[in-house]
Amino acid sequence: MLMFRKLLAEFFGTFWIVLGGCGSAVLASRFPETGVGLAGVAFAFGLAMLTGWYALGPISGGHFNPAVTFGLWTARRFPGTLVIPYFIAQVIGGIVAAAILFAIANGGPAFDVAGGFAANGFGDHSPGGYSFAAAIVSELVMTFMFVLVVCGSTNIRAPVNFAGLAIGLALTLVHLISIPVTNTSVNPARSTGPAVFVGGWAVAQLWLFWIAPLVGGGIAGLVYHYLLEREVEPTMVGQQEPGWRPAHP
Amino acid sequence: MLMFRKLLAEFFGTFWIVLGGCGSAVLASRFPETGVGLAGVAFAFGLAMLTGWYALGPISGGHFNPAVTFGLWTARRFPGTLVIPYFIAQVIGGIVAAAILFAIANGGPAFDVAGGFAANGFGDHSPGGYSFAAAIVSELVMTFMFVLVVCGSTNIRAPVNFAGLAIGLALTLVHLISIPVTNTSVNPARSTGPAVFVGGWAVAQLWLFWIAPLVGGGIAGLVYHYLLEREVEPTMVGQQEPGWRPAHP
Amino acid sequence: MLMFRKLLAEFFGTFWIVLGGCGSAVLASRFPETGVGLAGVAFAFGLAMLTGWYALGPISGGHFNPAVTFGLWTARRFPGTLVIPYFIAQVIGGIVAAAILFAIANGGPAFDVAGGFAANGFGDHSPGGYSFAAAIVSELVMTFMFVLVVCGSTNIRAPVNFAGLAIGLALTLVHLISIPVTNTSVNPARSTGPAVFVGGWAVAQLWLFWIAPLVGGGIAGLVYHYLLEREVEPTMVGQQEPGWRPAHP
Amino acid sequence: MLMFRKLLAEFFGTFWIVLGGCGSAVLASRFPETGVGLAGVAFAFGLAMLTGWYALGPISGGHFNPAVTFGLWTARRFPGTLVIPYFIAQVIGGIVAAAILFAIANGGPAFDVAGGFAANGFGDHSPGGYSFAAAIVSELVMTFMFVLVVCGSTNIRAPVNFAGLAIGLALTLVHLISIPVTNTSVNPARSTGPAVFVGGWAVAQLWLFWIAPLVGGGIAGLVYHYLLEREVEPTMVGQQEPGWRPAHP
Repeated sequence: MLMFRKLLAEFFGTFWIVLGGCGSAVLASRFPETGVGLAGVAFAFGLAMLTGWYALGPISGGHFNPAVTFGLWTARRFPGTLVIPYFIAQVIGGIVAAAILFAIANGGPAFDVAGGFAANGFGDHSPGGYSFAAAIVSELVMTFMFVLVVCGSTNIRAPVNFAGLAIGLALTLVHLISIPVTNTSVNPARSTGPAVFVGGWAVAQLWLFWIAPLVGGGIAGLVYHYLLEREVEPTMVGQQEPGWRPAHP
Repeated sequence: MLMFRKLLAEFFGTFWIVLGGCGSAVLASRFPETGVGLAGVAFAFGLAMLTGWYALGPISGGHFNPAVTFGLWTARRFPGTLVIPYFIAQVIGGIVAAAILFAIANGGPAFDVAGGFAANGFGDHSPGGYSFAAAIVSELVMTFMFVLVVCGSTNIRAPVNFAGLAIGLALTLVHLISIPVTNTSVNPARSTGPAVFVGGWAVAQLWLFWIAPLVGGGIAGLVYHYLLEREVEPTMVGQQEPGWRPAHP
Repeated sequence: MLMFRKLLAEFFGTFWIVLGGCGSAVLASRFPETGVGLAGVAFAFGLAMLTGWYALGPISGGHFNPAVTFGLWTARRFPGTLVIPYFIAQVIGGIVAAAILFAIANGGPAFDVAGGFAANGFGDHSPGGYSFAAAIVSELVMTFMFVLVVCGSTNIRAPVNFAGLAIGLALTLVHLISIPVTNTSVNPARSTGPAVFVGGWAVAQLWLFWIAPLVGGGIAGLVYHYLLEREVEPTMVGQQEPGWRPAHP
Repeated sequence: MLMFRKLLAEFFGTFWIVLGGCGSAVLASRFPETGVGLAGVAFAFGLAMLTGWYALGPISGGHFNPAVTFGLWTARRFPGTLVIPYFIAQVIGGIVAAAILFAIANGGPAFDVAGGFAANGFGDHSPGGYSFAAAIVSELVMTFMFVLVVCGSTNIRAPVNFAGLAIGLALTLVHLISIPVTNTSVNPARSTGPAVFVGGWAVAQLWLFWIAPLVGGGIAGLVYHYLLEREVEPTMVGQQEPGWRPAHP
């Protein structure tokens, strides 16, 4: 039952990110005259992450993203047996969100799912016409830094309650940089949802938005764990300094 | 007297949301060249929620929304005897805010209340021309997720002081997605305020913006309580772990 | 010396708000194609308040605004003997900020101080052409709600560390609503700075931006203290519940 | 090894600020129709600072900026022996970020590094055509206030966990004001990264973006330490009041 709650929380969190981020992109970003633009979409993705983390994080850890789950596993913080169940819950959440969004968008005038539906792509399907190589570099580096923020801000020496703020706004930042390149994935479940409805090229290019985020996130977990993390002295375990101050060595 | 303070706090909080969100929409969103657009309106609604929650939440719980009050009741966190008094205080707050906004907007050039006044609508009165079905789905799902964030972020296992941040920014997110569909309600009191001044179609369509948010919020309370909430062990009651960390199972 | 530090902190805080908010309006809001617009200006004012509050609030209380100082005095939280010294430090901060901004703006092409310089005004000098009556109502109500947020979020029953977030974002919200009406003051020191350099109409209309905010803020202090504030039981004084949760009665 | 971790954290933090802020400027700010504009760039810089601070601050203190390191040294909070090593790690981070950004931007259509690449400049190379004098004043004052926020918000009497929020959003504010003047530096490492790739004028003007921020930040450290900081009584050392409230004297 505890396990079911965790998976349900991951389902709802990923659902929220795809509904929020892709929903803002599809419904509101190009609204005539007053559309929210790419900045609005960037905040939509980040605020879905942030609010989901505070609401559902206490239940499941608040990953909502296979690249985060995988990176926390390589950082030795997450049990391997749960990686695949988390992936499944996240992907289902992404697909159900895309279905709901499809139903809403379909009720508007002149909706054309083949026009993109916020799917991720490169080359001819990059919003700004960026190459395959640019897409690979962008997704790798963006996911690396995103998962580094996840690992660092939830470390025992960090003021952990602020991690949701940091993680959510890091997702906003990633989108403020790279939407023109790939529409920004850094999250395979987020890419899978819309791709199922767009089909064709979106499914054909989907592999990149699984491989690059997982590799970037996995490396981030290793770098954080082996190069940045300070070993926790035994007496420190479970002890969060209330008066945490940045270390000015 | 304690009761009076609670109702007064709900009045001011709902007043602030309607004055802030609808005020930004009516006065500033379409200002020539530099208008704040839908993204500005989305932040206005969310920041009113966020700031009201920190300022008045300690008094009343910071609902400012019948759908939240109803959802907390179905989640078994709020006494049934207070539901109707809260509704009344919230609706009065929404109407008084609309009256003040009417007075200010009326002092500007070319104000036309029939042009919308930030009322919610569907079909011909949807900002983007979305159908009745799209409006129903949107309001149901948006309110469901919004109230799920309210329930989750105020749960005893969550870092509760951050709930105002999460709840306020969840309201911003909801608007970043769905303003084009219905002008976004998710709050019957927010819908009622402007409708009183617009009259006609706005009053005729008002029922949807009571039913859909209440149903969506009510289901969220049930889902959270029965499917997501972890029972609190007796020794845990009232105990907030200062060093709360996300659960990486 | 303690007194000097408090006044210096109020000087720098008000300096920051006027330099930040008016600076964004004068230098960046209308930048061709990519200008930050009214939404950017609204965030500039609010983020100056927020960041000043966390940096300087521990020294002076973080008012940076005569209307806040006055409202905290009517709320019986601030000693009357310090009201005038605080006013003076705040007004000097506002004027020095306007001087620095004048020096920077003067180094750009086609700067015309008579074109506004972010001064507040009504009637012919309202950005959106709003009447005197609309200006009065707007400044009164906006300052009232702003100071209510100040009083409520710093109350002993609130999670006080979050007050800077709430107060800063409340200032952003106030600007997201009312810049078109009066350019938004809610702060007599903020109005005085630019008015000194614009002269003429800006000085002639300055009285309204002292009277309305002080009256609005003063009433907010009274309303909060007499109608909303819960008396603190003796045993509660100085005691901040770490596990504060919103009251769901 | 502890030292290596600190320098690696400074490397990644500065990398993140330059990749995020300059990346948003180069890739997304002028995207047709829906570009994020200067406001999006301002948030990108600030959110990189904010998220880096929470993720890496526990390791290195979260400077990511030679002007911050220097200001904390003049404020007597940072050991002189580490100033140069920190500078080196920060500059390398900035250059590597510019290299990655160059690789991504190069994969897009019509990329022209001589068109700016987010380098800082004055006179003919100021985005808004601002003079050398305006650039000096702007960089001096902006860095002064930014470092004042760093010093104040990490002071032992402040709610220190919120410092990342204050510092990050102060960087956003600084950009909301001054991008049109110099493209905003306040950080010599951020200026050095793009300048290496732009060459020519950007390298010729780089000295100003080292001198002005270092002087501004250094003065801020002195002003904070000698004029604003309250001496910490011996019994207070290491003690963070959980119920910190703003001082209403």
